[in-house]
Amino acid sequence: MHILVINSGSSSLKYQLFAMPSDQPLCVGQIERIGLDGSFVRHQVTGADRLERTEPIADHAVGLQRVLELLSDPVSGVISSPDAIEAIGHRVVHGGERFARATRITPAVKDTIKALFALAPLHNPINYQCIEIAEKTFPKAVQIAVFDTAFHQTMPEYAFRYAIPEALYRQEAIRVYGFHGTSHRYVSKQATAWLNRPDAKLISIHLGNGSSITAVRAGQSIDTSMGFSPLAGLVMGTRSGDIDPAVIFHLISRGHSPDDVNRLLNKQSGMQGLTGFSDMRDIRKAMEAGNREAALAYELYAYRVRKYIGAYAAVLNGLDALIFTAGIGENDATMRAMICRDLGFLNVYLDSDKNNSSARDLRDVSTPDSPVKILIIPTNEELEIAQQSYELLQVA
Amino acid sequence: MHILVINSGSSSLKYQLFAMPSDQPLCVGQIERIGLDGSFVRHQVTGADRLERTEPIADHAVGLQRVLELLSDPVSGVISSPDAIEAIGHRVVHGGERFARATRITPAVKDTIKALFALAPLHNPINYQCIEIAEKTFPKAVQIAVFDTAFHQTMPEYAFRYAIPEALYRQEAIRVYGFHGTSHRYVSKQATAWLNRPDAKLISIHLGNGSSITAVRAGQSIDTSMGFSPLAGLVMGTRSGDIDPAVIFHLISRGHSPDDVNRLLNKQSGMQGLTGFSDMRDIRKAMEAGNREAALAYELYAYRVRKYIGAYAAVLNGLDALIFTAGIGENDATMRAMICRDLGFLNVYLDSDKNNSSARDLRDVSTPDSPVKILIIPTNEELEIAQQSYELLQVA
Repeated sequence: MHILVINSGSSSLKYQLFAMPSDQPLCVGQIERIGLDGSFVRHQVTGADRLERTEPIADHAVGLQRVLELLSDPVSGVISSPDAIEAIGHRVVHGGERFARATRITPAVKDTIKALFALAPLHNPINYQCIEIAEKTFPKAVQIAVFDTAFHQTMPEYAFRYAIPEALYRQEAIRVYGFHGTSHRYVSKQATAWLNRPDAKLISIHLGNGSSITAVRAGQSIDTSMGFSPLAGLVMGTRSGDIDPAVIFHLISRGHSPDDVNRLLNKQSGMQGLTGFSDMRDIRKAMEAGNREAALAYELYAYRVRKYIGAYAAVLNGLDALIFTAGIGENDATMRAMICRDLGFLNVYLDSDKNNSSARDLRDVSTPDSPVKILIIPTNEELEIAQQSYELLQVA
Repeated sequence: MHILVINSGSSSLKYQLFAMPSDQPLCVGQIERIGLDGSFVRHQVTGADRLERTEPIADHAVGLQRVLELLSDPVSGVISSPDAIEAIGHRVVHGGERFARATRITPAVKDTIKALFALAPLHNPINYQCIEIAEKTFPKAVQIAVFDTAFHQTMPEYAFRYAIPEALYRQEAIRVYGFHGTSHRYVSKQATAWLNRPDAKLISIHLGNGSSITAVRAGQSIDTSMGFSPLAGLVMGTRSGDIDPAVIFHLISRGHSPDDVNRLLNKQSGMQGLTGFSDMRDIRKAMEAGNREAALAYELYAYRVRKYIGAYAAVLNGLDALIFTAGIGENDATMRAMICRDLGFLNVYLDSDKNNSSARDLRDVSTPDSPVKILIIPTNEELEIAQQSYELLQVA
């Protein structure tokens, strides 16, 4: 069975085609700068050369049509017609409280995704639009939504509620949702299997350009660091993460507009705000060259992760493994070492040699006698979406 | 030596007179509703009946004059003239980065307190005004400022900085300051002495109408839950504590003004927002009567404290004692039990019988074999201010 996974952003469209249930990726690609100057397409069939072409892509409909052409090209393509795609798994950012799992898209489901525009104004509208385009481009395929928030719907109420008037929750849906759920679910499933403990207590640490950390018990999310939005929690590339909300009122009282402050915390803060760089590799280089701000930013970033590790160890009342995943989590050995430093009280002991190896698969980088394992697990949100879509079709 | 301690609020003036160095309180009192209808004075000489009188008190100058009359009353007074007061210790809320300890008030110090008005617009101006009044009312007394923020000036930079553009720290002084420092210092000194371990790793949990939690190592604050303002951190009587900053932008985008949202998070949130009550005793009664919102609010409150305990145990990489203090911390056995539940992984074990005893002094309510002690220590910010003032005079 062929399942196409689509991950759309405001000016981008990422896609991957899988043969299921073998989890075999047939091709992967992305279109960037949609509707902008210099839009381009990258497309790679597994085992073949990568095709990369700058060409005008006016909108997502044109983009998805282009994907279809690439997939069904008589020479380099991997399918014979649109109908060869049996299902499309759409990443949808916000599922609110209504979606706790992958869901077959019906008119009612579309209405609910639409009703959630207010909670995710930057993401849900484009995800919705791409569902409608896909329905036209691949009319025979089953359309499935996989939500970034769904995995966190198992959080207990005392963890997902804010201490604000109850009406803001009941009527305005203001609560912790959490994001990166597809990634946290994927790596925590792998860790649970690797440990061979279905009841494992895990802390899943997704460190990418956006970052979040999740406490997982027996395969279920019980707390997570992003909240109502992806702004809360850890320090990120350009986002502040946790900050005293009074800072916002202070800046507004000093003459900044709410929109400016919103932009400041989302786009000009985090590692970017502290160092002038948002890419961790640049910051590490600067740190290694003796740059004081870069060293402070690295310390601060690691320190915030450590505090969440402690908080979630308390919430879980114990810990079987830490999981590092996503770009920084998988590749930045320096950051992992700083995060795991002096966590002996939590029974976390990093093996420095293993940590510095450049292996690429799931691996344990704790010392042989560390009670808590430290796993590096490459995330694969696209595969997780394909797997959830496949499972949904088996049940249906 | 007589030291008078003054703690002024926008419409209140609390005071306490100590004989030092014996720490003996000679009298204590407060004036409330200054400048409002129904202003009243409460004054109690140690060992005598309490005097309470409703009388018009137009402003803080009138109030302090009234305090002087009460202190020097020929029949019930405790001093013969204003000059018998050798020093006055003023609680000043915000000392910024300039004051890390009790400080003798000079014209330069007053200028600095004034320069900090922008950071503490609700508190520093009234503290400043009361210093000037006291200088006139008690012209022979040495005036000393003891700052709520001072104890936290030992925090490392990676703990006190926010992940926002560096210029906002350098030029606008936006960072974590922390508050309740006088209380955290007082109880952690006592705990360190009780444990007889100068290097003790402590978590000081101040739970009152405002609440904060501080990690203390070797007598120094290394992290604390309040931040740039007293809004951040734990859930409080009417303050939200930690919340995704994006909630603020969302509410503003839905038509609320920034001032309304500020008021919402400071005055209508916390336990008040969750339950309709801000007093924990009312909420406990409602919970015991089966009220669902009250039970949730209790759980949520305890849960947030537990997360900070875990975070700070990680930061300290170990833990010798938890300290509970202030109104709720000292008196609410139910809350203490909920906070300490399932913290075995952190070696925290509460003794339920000891926890439920109604003793009033410093006491250990952990089980005999609990590696981490759980201390209840009545706080006494006024005595701490008197002691710091006394010590300053000895050095000077």
